Amino acid sequence: MQALILAGGSGTRFWPLSRRLRPKQLLALEGEHSLLQQTVDRLAPTIEPTAVWVCTTEALADAIRQQLPEVPPHQILAEPEGRNTAPAIGWSLRSMPEEIRNEPVAVLPADHRFADPTAFRETLLLAKAAVERDDRVMTLGVTPRWAETGYGYLELGDEIDPKTGLRDVASFTEKPDADTAQGYYQDRTHLWNAGIFLFRGTTLLSHLARFEPEIGRGLELMAQQPERTAEIYPTLPSISIDYAVMERLESIATLPLDCGWSDLGSWEALAEILPANGDGNRAQGDTLAIDARDNLLYSDAGTIAVLGVEGLVVVRTGDAVLVMPKDRSQEVRRIVKEYRSRQRNDLL
Amino acid sequence: MQALILAGGSGTRFWPLSRRLRPKQLLALEGEHSLLQQTVDRLAPTIEPTAVWVCTTEALADAIRQQLPEVPPHQILAEPEGRNTAPAIGWSLRSMPEEIRNEPVAVLPADHRFADPTAFRETLLLAKAAVERDDRVMTLGVTPRWAETGYGYLELGDEIDPKTGLRDVASFTEKPDADTAQGYYQDRTHLWNAGIFLFRGTTLLSHLARFEPEIGRGLELMAQQPERTAEIYPTLPSISIDYAVMERLESIATLPLDCGWSDLGSWEALAEILPANGDGNRAQGDTLAIDARDNLLYSDAGTIAVLGVEGLVVVRTGDAVLVMPKDRSQEVRRIVKEYRSRQRNDLL
Repeated sequence: MQALILAGGSGTRFWPLSRRLRPKQLLALEGEHSLLQQTVDRLAPTIEPTAVWVCTTEALADAIRQQLPEVPPHQILAEPEGRNTAPAIGWSLRSMPEEIRNEPVAVLPADHRFADPTAFRETLLLAKAAVERDDRVMTLGVTPRWAETGYGYLELGDEIDPKTGLRDVASFTEKPDADTAQGYYQDRTHLWNAGIFLFRGTTLLSHLARFEPEIGRGLELMAQQPERTAEIYPTLPSISIDYAVMERLESIATLPLDCGWSDLGSWEALAEILPANGDGNRAQGDTLAIDARDNLLYSDAGTIAVLGVEGLVVVRTGDAVLVMPKDRSQEVRRIVKEYRSRQRNDLL
Repeated sequence: MQALILAGGSGTRFWPLSRRLRPKQLLALEGEHSLLQQTVDRLAPTIEPTAVWVCTTEALADAIRQQLPEVPPHQILAEPEGRNTAPAIGWSLRSMPEEIRNEPVAVLPADHRFADPTAFRETLLLAKAAVERDDRVMTLGVTPRWAETGYGYLELGDEIDPKTGLRDVASFTEKPDADTAQGYYQDRTHLWNAGIFLFRGTTLLSHLARFEPEIGRGLELMAQQPERTAEIYPTLPSISIDYAVMERLESIATLPLDCGWSDLGSWEALAEILPANGDGNRAQGDTLAIDARDNLLYSDAGTIAVLGVEGLVVVRTGDAVLVMPKDRSQEVRRIVKEYRSRQRNDLL
């Protein structure tokens, strides 16, 4: 089995810690290893680093090769330009030698967290068996732990295999409203779409060429004339693998992941996984809280001292400080946008 | 006329900006010049820097000589040890040559602010005339601008000179409760005690020797045997000039200072003198506020970005961040105390 880790993201949700050249997947938000390194570590008992492929951007490729010395450097693939997940996955699969591409390939985001990596690997092996046995295309959904409105969902369909819990995906749904999400959560009829896929590479490529012939032709052309990659790649339609393939497939199977998954989508989400002290403060790095409650204090450099404040995110890096209410931490994008409009490239 | 600036303070109220070796009087809280430099600048049209004396500690003397190149270096006096204002003033006066010591001397704190320095100097000259004419000991009180409970007060007594407004001080009072302060403010019978004094040096020294003979003997001994200063000075009673002399004097006169005085006693007090933008935010240095109101954002190094917060003090230095409600900014001492107990000398 091979792993293809998608590590091209350039998220701004962890500003000021995350920057253009140090996006979330390269950050060690907890502990010593970055989220990308943790992704490789988590796979290692099942998929060795020599079977790991990483798709990223040219700007990040060197940093990623440094973070992952155990992954063969030529398996860190640098897209000439970000074109969403369908071109990225297609081009990465075509970059693998043919015999490798015919194996089961797990496609994984680089920046998620799994509290229980053992359970994750067990589910991965069950999925791999289904791919090998029936050449299925699979997506692994996460068993909802609350009525989240910020994720897409997979609607569960017919049971395929009672032994493993393998089921058909009846449909993909977009982010629901609160009532709908509550229904999904209570009825246990839906899983969170976590962007984790399994398939034979060759199988996925044939589906992709069928549904998105323009991408298929482009991939074929680049395979024949690799020297034209930088010219052809940016002309591929920018479309996600969900829209391009998954939602159009006649049959797609799923297994529920129940292993403490988090997409760590915001400072607030990070706060939830850090241990709280008696006052509900969660801290990383050199911090001091007096008469303060339920704050996230995150220092990458220097000390943070707070007194008499509640429910805040306070982040300190070598060159910046962020202070905002924890429950508005999605809005950090507004800060990044403002610095961008001020052309503060030093802070982006 | 001579000026004696008391610059030995080691306040913690402006942590993290203020540190042991960079106390408040050495900070440029607004603009380019430190509060000490501003004190010298403010005096200059009336008292030239060559007539300025500074009493400080050994730890700060070099930094002060650098900040005040126009003051003769030997007039920057370094106490062997901090012993409160009575020993400091007595020893500083004895360190002046006798003919200088016989002139009017204005004693001033190093870390206060005057919005109207011209009015300050005019009052200073009126006070000087009273000292020269009648050899008075004077204290300049500040006309209250609100019912402050954090200061001591001077109770106004009989009018001495209707032309200049010179009046006797009937009594000194400690920090009042809120009702009493309100009464003082409405009745216009009291002035804020700002720790600004004027007298002939020789006159003050004779009063000091009379009221505090132990200090008098110590000063005499050090004058005869200057090489024993480091041994004798620390044995002087630690007492303020108010207790030692001012409150015991048969007669002390005052003039009201009405010139936008502030002792800049806290981050909140600093906020009040910085200009506010449309949202009531006051900022110094590189800052960004989105959807935020009435905050003080003070950056000495790096950027501060806040979103959705109100009424906070956020201060950033090269090695620390402070976040607290503006109206609790007096409590910054608790933070310094905690770092002291953690032996974080790097932050003190």
